[in-house]
Amino acid sequence: MNGLFITFEGPEGAGKTTILQAAADQLTKNGYSVLATREPGGIEISERIREVILNPSHTAMDPKTEALLYAAARRQHLVEKVKPALEKGKIVLCDRFIDSSLAYQGYARGLGIDEVFSVNQFAIGNMMPNMTIYFDIDPEEGMKRININHAREKNRLDLEKLHFHQLVQKGYKEVMNRFPGRFRIVDASQNVEHVLKRVNNIIKEALKENQL
Amino acid sequence: MNGLFITFEGPEGAGKTTILQAAADQLTKNGYSVLATREPGGIEISERIREVILNPSHTAMDPKTEALLYAAARRQHLVEKVKPALEKGKIVLCDRFIDSSLAYQGYARGLGIDEVFSVNQFAIGNMMPNMTIYFDIDPEEGMKRININHAREKNRLDLEKLHFHQLVQKGYKEVMNRFPGRFRIVDASQNVEHVLKRVNNIIKEALKENQL
Repeated sequence: MNGLFITFEGPEGAGKTTILQAAADQLTKNGYSVLATREPGGIEISERIREVILNPSHTAMDPKTEALLYAAARRQHLVEKVKPALEKGKIVLCDRFIDSSLAYQGYARGLGIDEVFSVNQFAIGNMMPNMTIYFDIDPEEGMKRININHAREKNRLDLEKLHFHQLVQKGYKEVMNRFPGRFRIVDASQNVEHVLKRVNNIIKEALKENQL
Repeated sequence: MNGLFITFEGPEGAGKTTILQAAADQLTKNGYSVLATREPGGIEISERIREVILNPSHTAMDPKTEALLYAAARRQHLVEKVKPALEKGKIVLCDRFIDSSLAYQGYARGLGIDEVFSVNQFAIGNMMPNMTIYFDIDPEEGMKRININHAREKNRLDLEKLHFHQLVQKGYKEVMNRFPGRFRIVDASQNVEHVLKRVNNIIKEALKENQL
């Protein structure tokens, strides 16, 4: 692989989607060939798998079935889109990847980080990201950002959601403990300019380290 | 689990589907409550997954994506159909299960038996079959049975198919070496009455062993 594979991770409301696009634009401006993507990424087979996952009539879906389907969609997106880009020497920025499954399904949904990792290791083989940028934000702050109606009182569902987001955050901390070398942590509570600057610097360093 | 979970395995043309139905009928006659099934087994989610696998336009499908999809369909069929039947104390006869994936995808397609086992272990957890009946037949004989046109000369495709069926057979032998206690081998080259009698005896012994 000649390229560089960087994934963006973090809870909802951390701003990673916005920053990813801006960082990709900056790289392009600097003359790099870039692929900005996220699963299922327009890959026909992965889109069809995602339809099975998200079909609202599939209420009987078992969490492990879901985890296997996510891993299948990930595999196909990787093989058809990410791998060819890396082989062409592109910088690939991917919004969510294996660590989302580990934090959300492995930890927060209780399937076990090791178990979900083993399935995903089968799916991605030796194609682990070179680097993962983690957008660190307090779960309550993240929820505020995704809720339009900030002022309303918290109801039971909001509290449940908050609890789930706290579990996701704990899950990410566990995952980062297992792969200490791969992660760079960004304080996502700062304003967009600040965060983008930090992310651009992180990517710049990674390019230098990899002589790109 | 109060029931008994028996899987039927073997190459194509070994006659296991016919025998499975006849054995199920015999068990019902003897007063047992029986579920005769095979994946996807009419389970909505598993049927949808199978559609993604078999869609002829999905020529880009990676073998690992396929293996993950099979494992996902297996999980859902197990959770929705096999597990509830076993909990009700039924005898479950299932046409193909984990060992088919190990022999076909793990060995014959070259993904690795250990790798495919690890994914399937995630899918089925502690729900391994109590017993597996292997229908042993020479691959050439099995192919003859599924080809209507016996007399025609072998073409290149037939030879390729034969080679693949030989690989599948080798795969099954490997799998049986790994799980020696679970398998009962049946000589499937004999006539139907013979094979059925042997299978009925094997099941009878298993029922006795499990005090059912």
